[in-house]
Amino acid sequence: MRVAIVGATGAVGHELLRVLEKSTLKLDELQLYASPRSAGSTLSFAGREITVQATPEGAIDADVILASAGGSISKALAPAWVAGGAVVIDNSSAFRYDPEVPLVVPEVNGEAALSHRGIIANPNCTTAIAAVAVAPLHRAFGVRRMIVSTYQATSGAGQKGMEELLTQTHMVLHGKEAGAEVFAHPIPFNVIPHIDSFGDNGYTREEMKVVWETRKILGDESLAISCTAVRIPTLRTHAEAITLELERPATPEQARELLRAAAGVEVRDDPAGKLYPMPLTATGKYDVEVGRIRSSLVFEGGLDLFVAGDQLLKGAALNAVQIAEYLQEKGALRGRVTG
Amino acid sequence: MRVAIVGATGAVGHELLRVLEKSTLKLDELQLYASPRSAGSTLSFAGREITVQATPEGAIDADVILASAGGSISKALAPAWVAGGAVVIDNSSAFRYDPEVPLVVPEVNGEAALSHRGIIANPNCTTAIAAVAVAPLHRAFGVRRMIVSTYQATSGAGQKGMEELLTQTHMVLHGKEAGAEVFAHPIPFNVIPHIDSFGDNGYTREEMKVVWETRKILGDESLAISCTAVRIPTLRTHAEAITLELERPATPEQARELLRAAAGVEVRDDPAGKLYPMPLTATGKYDVEVGRIRSSLVFEGGLDLFVAGDQLLKGAALNAVQIAEYLQEKGALRGRVTG
Repeated sequence: MRVAIVGATGAVGHELLRVLEKSTLKLDELQLYASPRSAGSTLSFAGREITVQATPEGAIDADVILASAGGSISKALAPAWVAGGAVVIDNSSAFRYDPEVPLVVPEVNGEAALSHRGIIANPNCTTAIAAVAVAPLHRAFGVRRMIVSTYQATSGAGQKGMEELLTQTHMVLHGKEAGAEVFAHPIPFNVIPHIDSFGDNGYTREEMKVVWETRKILGDESLAISCTAVRIPTLRTHAEAITLELERPATPEQARELLRAAAGVEVRDDPAGKLYPMPLTATGKYDVEVGRIRSSLVFEGGLDLFVAGDQLLKGAALNAVQIAEYLQEKGALRGRVTG
Repeated sequence: MRVAIVGATGAVGHELLRVLEKSTLKLDELQLYASPRSAGSTLSFAGREITVQATPEGAIDADVILASAGGSISKALAPAWVAGGAVVIDNSSAFRYDPEVPLVVPEVNGEAALSHRGIIANPNCTTAIAAVAVAPLHRAFGVRRMIVSTYQATSGAGQKGMEELLTQTHMVLHGKEAGAEVFAHPIPFNVIPHIDSFGDNGYTREEMKVVWETRKILGDESLAISCTAVRIPTLRTHAEAITLELERPATPEQARELLRAAAGVEVRDDPAGKLYPMPLTATGKYDVEVGRIRSSLVFEGGLDLFVAGDQLLKGAALNAVQIAEYLQEKGALRGRVTG
């Protein structure tokens, strides 16, 4: 299989290379693309150096294109990539809300990927992380209402977000005032309830992505979902506090049992042993940590839980590669209907 | 009025001195007490130095004792302080759930303080900060369910909590591994969903305090409240994401109007101008910042909001001094029934 990464030099690109090294994809060729500024540099992959090329204007000769260079590039170039015969797995939000484009978390709705018409969308990081934990509970007990508060890492804004946290924290520790270029306000020792742009209803796009995308992935437009998305001074791994109202009552023990058997989930729920989901332990991990599972105090038979998942892995690079692996496994790479 | 501070050398003690300097209390005398280890040191107050004394075993000759030296000291000594004629305003959780002890946020239920029998409890910081924002909405629209996710600063663990964040962050920035003494796990660039001890129902005491204390302060035991309490790497000021189901529907504009007229609240809610509650702006401020007010997506006619309040001020020192000011204003300092 010939794979191309567009946006290979970014934070997600970096993780794509690491995840591909360990993946089950039968890789015959790996092409790396980025902005003209990065062209000519090399990135290491499986012990060899691959030269980064400037992303061309038209088609790319590959079977799978993993696109992670932002929404405007995907929007502009994906049609040409599809016309050229590739399957595009797109990490941006450009196509996620297109009813013809499947939005896929393989553990949850992998089969949706099989009906692609050239493009498959990778969900928003916060959504992907919540979905692996909530989907098994939804299938067993029927989620009616879902309330999410997020604790989002600076990696959500890419490499430059993490760098801003580190350099500005350094400033503060040396008695200087912190500045902000990537974020709307200084991020060291601060909390910013503002990710992406604000909509007319007072919610940010980041918050509405969780609403729209969770419904699409779970295939249930009747789900009532609310989200408060908050940037905090962590490097990578998003955490989320989730409250669920259920159609059929569930006990925490039932939920733990279900989630222990679920793909992509590590139940980390032993308060007495100080085990619960945290960025410190979830960073670099493929599975999403789920813990603090307890009976809801506001919804009878409902549940409260806490999750932590690496934004750059399950929230981005890993999920994209897992989609490609799923297509390979199902022999569906060439089975798509070209546009 | 003769005032004594027990626990004067701690983080809350430090803020008590600063708040008392600006308060309307008619101060005739200020005594400072702490552990024997701190006895003999001096603290500055209104331009002069006051010597810290070791907390005695028995009565303290003062009209008001502001106690902030932890629950075990309050539990052991408060009866003697009351017997000695003082009114005790206690910052620990030792007496908060005693039905004979009023639990007071002056803007919300100041009149409850008038029925004290020697001890008045100062609420948990997270509760006090939420209460000033939620009480006006409860009075106008009737809160039915309240779901809280917290973003709590290290100051909640006192001066040593803030120091651990700073020194351990320094370690990480210099490539060393962070340790933990105050917190259960390293706090730099991490999120720890564990504050205070775990109960049988899987909730921490910190989370249950919000449930129990909010009900007591709002005088409504039927309120359904849930909380996820999370420690994050900030220095001071707790933030909280709050979702409210209401008996009578409210619009965000109605809520803003109500809250603009409410005591102790600063409405900071102009997303287009990047104005919303943040530790960066709420730190050192007496008022609790309230913003991100929007119609709930899970409860018809309900509201979502975000608050940020200085844990050491409204969450502790300020509220305690405000209780004393309220008693002075109502001439209720000597009106108490001694035990």
